[in-house]
Amino acid sequence: MIRHPAFEVEPWTLREHHLDLDVLAQTESVFALSNGHIGLRGNLDEGEPHGEPGTYLNGFYELRPLPYAEGGYGYPESGQTVVNVTNGKLIRLLVGDEPFDLRYGTLHQHERVLDLRAGTLTRTAHWSSPTGISVRIRSTRLVSFTHRAVAAIQYEVEAVDRPTHFVVQSELVANETQTSAGGDPRAAATLRSPLVAEETVVDGDNLTIMVHRTRASGLRVAAGMWHEIDGPDGTVTEAQGSEDVSRVTVATLLSPGQKLRLVKYFSYGWSAKRSRPALHDQVAAALAAARLVGWDGLCADQRRFLDDFWDGADVEVEGDAEVQQAVRFGLFHLLQSAARLEERALPAKGLTGSGYDGHAFWDTEIFVLPVLTYTYPRAVADALSWRRSILPLARARARQLGLRGAAFPWRTIHGEECSGYWPAGAAAFHVNADIAHAVAQYVDACQHVAFDRDAGLHVLVETARLWCALGHHDAAGRYRIDGVTGPDEYTAVADNNVYTNLMAQRNLREAAEAAARHPALAARLEVTEEEIRRWRGAAEAMTVPWDERLGVHPQSEGFTQHALWDFAATGPDRYPLLLHFPYFDLYRRQVVKQADVVLAMHLRGDAFTPEQKADNFAYYEALTVRDSSLSACTQAVIAAEVGYLELAYRYLGEAALMDLADLEKNTVDGVHMASLAGAWIALVAGFGGMRAGGGRVCFAPALPSGITRLAFRLSYRGSLMSVSATKEATAYRLLAGPPITLTHYGEEFDLGQEEVTRPNPPRPAPEREVHQPPGREPRARRPREHGG
Amino acid sequence: MIRHPAFEVEPWTLREHHLDLDVLAQTESVFALSNGHIGLRGNLDEGEPHGEPGTYLNGFYELRPLPYAEGGYGYPESGQTVVNVTNGKLIRLLVGDEPFDLRYGTLHQHERVLDLRAGTLTRTAHWSSPTGISVRIRSTRLVSFTHRAVAAIQYEVEAVDRPTHFVVQSELVANETQTSAGGDPRAAATLRSPLVAEETVVDGDNLTIMVHRTRASGLRVAAGMWHEIDGPDGTVTEAQGSEDVSRVTVATLLSPGQKLRLVKYFSYGWSAKRSRPALHDQVAAALAAARLVGWDGLCADQRRFLDDFWDGADVEVEGDAEVQQAVRFGLFHLLQSAARLEERALPAKGLTGSGYDGHAFWDTEIFVLPVLTYTYPRAVADALSWRRSILPLARARARQLGLRGAAFPWRTIHGEECSGYWPAGAAAFHVNADIAHAVAQYVDACQHVAFDRDAGLHVLVETARLWCALGHHDAAGRYRIDGVTGPDEYTAVADNNVYTNLMAQRNLREAAEAAARHPALAARLEVTEEEIRRWRGAAEAMTVPWDERLGVHPQSEGFTQHALWDFAATGPDRYPLLLHFPYFDLYRRQVVKQADVVLAMHLRGDAFTPEQKADNFAYYEALTVRDSSLSACTQAVIAAEVGYLELAYRYLGEAALMDLADLEKNTVDGVHMASLAGAWIALVAGFGGMRAGGGRVCFAPALPSGITRLAFRLSYRGSLMSVSATKEATAYRLLAGPPITLTHYGEEFDLGQEEVTRPNPPRPAPEREVHQPPGREPRARRPREHGG
Repeated sequence: MIRHPAFEVEPWTLREHHLDLDVLAQTESVFALSNGHIGLRGNLDEGEPHGEPGTYLNGFYELRPLPYAEGGYGYPESGQTVVNVTNGKLIRLLVGDEPFDLRYGTLHQHERVLDLRAGTLTRTAHWSSPTGISVRIRSTRLVSFTHRAVAAIQYEVEAVDRPTHFVVQSELVANETQTSAGGDPRAAATLRSPLVAEETVVDGDNLTIMVHRTRASGLRVAAGMWHEIDGPDGTVTEAQGSEDVSRVTVATLLSPGQKLRLVKYFSYGWSAKRSRPALHDQVAAALAAARLVGWDGLCADQRRFLDDFWDGADVEVEGDAEVQQAVRFGLFHLLQSAARLEERALPAKGLTGSGYDGHAFWDTEIFVLPVLTYTYPRAVADALSWRRSILPLARARARQLGLRGAAFPWRTIHGEECSGYWPAGAAAFHVNADIAHAVAQYVDACQHVAFDRDAGLHVLVETARLWCALGHHDAAGRYRIDGVTGPDEYTAVADNNVYTNLMAQRNLREAAEAAARHPALAARLEVTEEEIRRWRGAAEAMTVPWDERLGVHPQSEGFTQHALWDFAATGPDRYPLLLHFPYFDLYRRQVVKQADVVLAMHLRGDAFTPEQKADNFAYYEALTVRDSSLSACTQAVIAAEVGYLELAYRYLGEAALMDLADLEKNTVDGVHMASLAGAWIALVAGFGGMRAGGGRVCFAPALPSGITRLAFRLSYRGSLMSVSATKEATAYRLLAGPPITLTHYGEEFDLGQEEVTRPNPPRPAPEREVHQPPGREPRARRPREHGG
Repeated sequence: MIRHPAFEVEPWTLREHHLDLDVLAQTESVFALSNGHIGLRGNLDEGEPHGEPGTYLNGFYELRPLPYAEGGYGYPESGQTVVNVTNGKLIRLLVGDEPFDLRYGTLHQHERVLDLRAGTLTRTAHWSSPTGISVRIRSTRLVSFTHRAVAAIQYEVEAVDRPTHFVVQSELVANETQTSAGGDPRAAATLRSPLVAEETVVDGDNLTIMVHRTRASGLRVAAGMWHEIDGPDGTVTEAQGSEDVSRVTVATLLSPGQKLRLVKYFSYGWSAKRSRPALHDQVAAALAAARLVGWDGLCADQRRFLDDFWDGADVEVEGDAEVQQAVRFGLFHLLQSAARLEERALPAKGLTGSGYDGHAFWDTEIFVLPVLTYTYPRAVADALSWRRSILPLARARARQLGLRGAAFPWRTIHGEECSGYWPAGAAAFHVNADIAHAVAQYVDACQHVAFDRDAGLHVLVETARLWCALGHHDAAGRYRIDGVTGPDEYTAVADNNVYTNLMAQRNLREAAEAAARHPALAARLEVTEEEIRRWRGAAEAMTVPWDERLGVHPQSEGFTQHALWDFAATGPDRYPLLLHFPYFDLYRRQVVKQADVVLAMHLRGDAFTPEQKADNFAYYEALTVRDSSLSACTQAVIAAEVGYLELAYRYLGEAALMDLADLEKNTVDGVHMASLAGAWIALVAGFGGMRAGGGRVCFAPALPSGITRLAFRLSYRGSLMSVSATKEATAYRLLAGPPITLTHYGEEFDLGQEEVTRPNPPRPAPEREVHQPPGREPRARRPREHGG
């Protein structure tokens, strides 16, 4: 667990003012840099000590067998695991004749700063070796948003109190020793020595390129490095290489105050198809481009890119500096995970760690992409085009399962189903409606016709076909979807899950609409009038279970008749429940891992009356243990909607601080992209009351006591707007693009060049008290030593 | 598949009149000999060719890891697999200078006969070697019912047309090469070289003893052999031994018509605790005892034992010679699986093959023990005492699962849960009620007070406690058991399975009754009045779902609202469905693997009206595909009860011929004990209408057109009776024991020394036609070449 005061509370930076080796692994995730294509964990330059060394390339994976004690038809036989590729961020340092290693000697000062506007991770250290030789180092690292294949490190060494010999070894290292993942199934399978050497080339005294391939998945990766070296006369450089290591060694003698400065440019390329020479050359070319731009150029490009991003995406939170920092930190990581996806998956941990084997899940579409849709939409088109690109695999999977249409994988890197437990894998068919939802939401918000035509329609049609294959009309004509698993994984393989059915209903309708928008293309997909009628008929007749006695929606049929979980008998050490209780026990009782009906009330708010929302929220609030990081933000949104602003505020804190405070104790495996997105969702959809669709954006701002002003920027159909709410009123401004129709608490108005201000109606707290399972209240925010 | 005419139809023997190597593996199962302690597959004496070599000792297993692609709390980490132990039945023969191997040379005659009254397997062969030397051999094999640790083979070799040198090698061989089990999860995991040599002792020229142990399970096995040799002068004998082989070699020269006769006595002992010397001596002692009794003595004891058995158990079927043979074959195998259990499990395949890893399941209690309860009850006490002996493990498992009471394993050898797929393993809690049912039925039928007190009460109390932990009273006070799997494995983890709830209801009541019978003992088990009230209260309020619209019992809640399986689109090559469709698809539709509600109607007939029985039967008949061998007999019983006698007769044929015709194509892995029991059940409970309980045995005989007379013997509370039914009337006779009250079609009468004959009322076929899923009608009986 990251002790709370590990990071300073500052609006635009994440600053760690001293090094704590106990939480090194967690900080490696938090300080990870990525552009969505390359990911570098925040490992120390010198490689050791480390929590988990990590260098990832989006889409680069190895296969591993998925074993079963008792097999079954359609079980995936092999899984995909993200590979720690050739480490290019390694810069070792010899001080006098001792290695610079923070576990020895004396560390006088150590600071790391992630700059959310510069897009860099800077580290400074002042250290004395065991024999008393002092050194200052300063490194600045970036993974370029503008040069997709390039990362760079500026590394400076300074002698402090005496003339000192330094040797800097800049390396590329393949097959690093990995820390074991242990028994937690959520952690990645550790793959030992996944890379087979194909080539190591040393060019002069300053450039090396290495090519490796995986054993089973047949992928090839090339890594290269080149250096600018700026040292005193007498500085010497040489380069060497062997199978898994190549090294540029710089030796120098520095007087006190004198510096050695080295800029390391490194680059990656990978392919399932391209040859060794082709990859080699690709990497060399990227290095040449980086060299041309130079360090200052890379840094300037990086800042310009981020300035643009923040212009369209920034959120201001007055009164709560910690959440202010957290929401920007979250947006920054979201951008990092998505900026240069280019038709690859957006994994649950981005490229910040090996958690969940590096797989992408439904949470990308339901939590991450909705944020990016309104703040950085071009990444959404990329992410969803990846879904479009794996449609052939999803269609094949549907056929294997005896279905029609497309069955997208529950978890994957490349597109094949990698889930080894079908009740919480294949049965979670809602992922298909979730993808359709993201498609429809993106098309609605961005009016991206080419995407709609070339990708969206295909996805909507094939997922609609799946729902027609999965459901059936019962004797009374109601449309049922039986035996599936909803978002709450503490109930599985149940009939008529409210969330699934409502999302499938929208999926069916959106497919019909898309086919109507593109009749000729739809016809080419063999969509007939009759099929569209079936889609609309199924949507119209969709079953949504209702418990008359309790006056709530049962999460799925029969749910509210199940025994209540015995929360009183469940000690705090028994969470997450799935690690301490068998599935059968969880499944047969009323206990909710994560928002399910409550998520449906957010995404399909139109399907519930205000009273139902309030009643359902109260009912499920008492059952929801939040053993998933995907829950707090949704509870925040609905808590705010039904009037529990202070509760929503507490959930906001939990979502926002998931990784900065390591609340689930697994930030070591990478940061939680969905929870990071959740901070934005809780603020904008929760306290801003933002909902969009059909050409309209609606707001209903209401602030909790801890926030004095909330402002955010978002784009809709080409209009960039800012919304600034205080307790009393909300000011709307159009920053760019055409005028737009908004609603404020249901009242429509047109936003043009004039700022519009509207008073916020009073929102007295509801009389009914809601409560969580004992011990599962939103996490308390700890008092802080600094800031806030 | 065994081609139908492989066996002659004879009333008391199973005769194979020629050898067909294509079905060798299946015939090894059918011709297996066992006494419940030792099991010998019907491998040829000379070892090769073989389908699957098999020598088993009840309870002797090796551990193997159970892997999971995604683990979960409470998943068993290791499984147990039956081990092919030291093979003692091996007798190789050298004819001239060529090995006797039926794959070469010319086989003039080959016959194997399993004699159901002698308890022996006899084989005769007349063969000429490739070089033209002829030999006749005759071997007779038995596994002694009366000497538990002993098996013996009389082996005779006769020269035919010229003086010939013969060398007989009688062996003990450990770690035989096993045939791979392939991908079918129902077959055993092949364990290669499971035994580690500890000792091979050669004593003189005629006796060897070998001791081995397993690597992981820590079990030790000793095997020994000793021979009587009767050959012409000049016959020489020597013995040798190495780690995994010991051998007694007999060389002789025989003139035409002259014979070498050898009797091989072999013996086994195993233990988890006893030392190598102790096991060695145990085996030596058993051999000494066998030597004292001699071959003729063993054969005489065997026949006497079987005469006694048949006196109390025989079934006569006139008009259908094939079923006549099959039911006796089945009873013989049941006896073989059970006779000398002595507190070990009774596996699904007995000791006839390695199918299902040698595990015992619920079918022992629900299909096998009910037959033995009325025909060979002492074995039932043994089998259920094994359940009593594993109560500590079952209690620990319940605690691991967060429950109280005992949770017996779904599948096991030693007592630990070995199921690697919990929805059809741990969730199938009905196994606990099934065990309780067998206990209650045995106590009712045999009035075995010591068992009731020392074993039965404990089992009933702990299983009743489980049901109290598994179920709950809902808001309306109804008692629900949610999220469990019933007998039909094509629906899993469902609420209020009718079978489970009704069996649990009986379990709760029987526990209350048992506690009332033994109040002091119950108090020692901490049973309180309050707990008994809770048991009775739960039983009283037990939910039994009912579909008002269809007028049938849904197998579990919601079942009848599920989509019907698309049988029309399911070709015959797609069965069994579980090998061609994913579980999720099976679970969400109305398709039934095996009798579930229909089984409840047999075992809890009191809980259904006659109309409900007829309506439920018709409804489920159309959905039941019988992908399990456990279904046909139950469908026969209820078909007969509701009046479909001809359909019942067809199901009888399927149950009876499961192994003799290899209907499920897996007889290779061992015979199906439950289906073999099913022939008796279909005849006695089906056409005899036999139901027993509370001191009364009820009959309602009604014969199908194919059976002209059905007679059977059974015991109840010390009264041995015979029932002989023709189409017109039924004659009841008391053969031994006190007078007894019976009912004939609901009319009570006392049966004393006088035979009682009652007319059978007419049973016109019901007007409603029932039908099975297309292609899943009961298997057609093929026309036969001989007999019938």
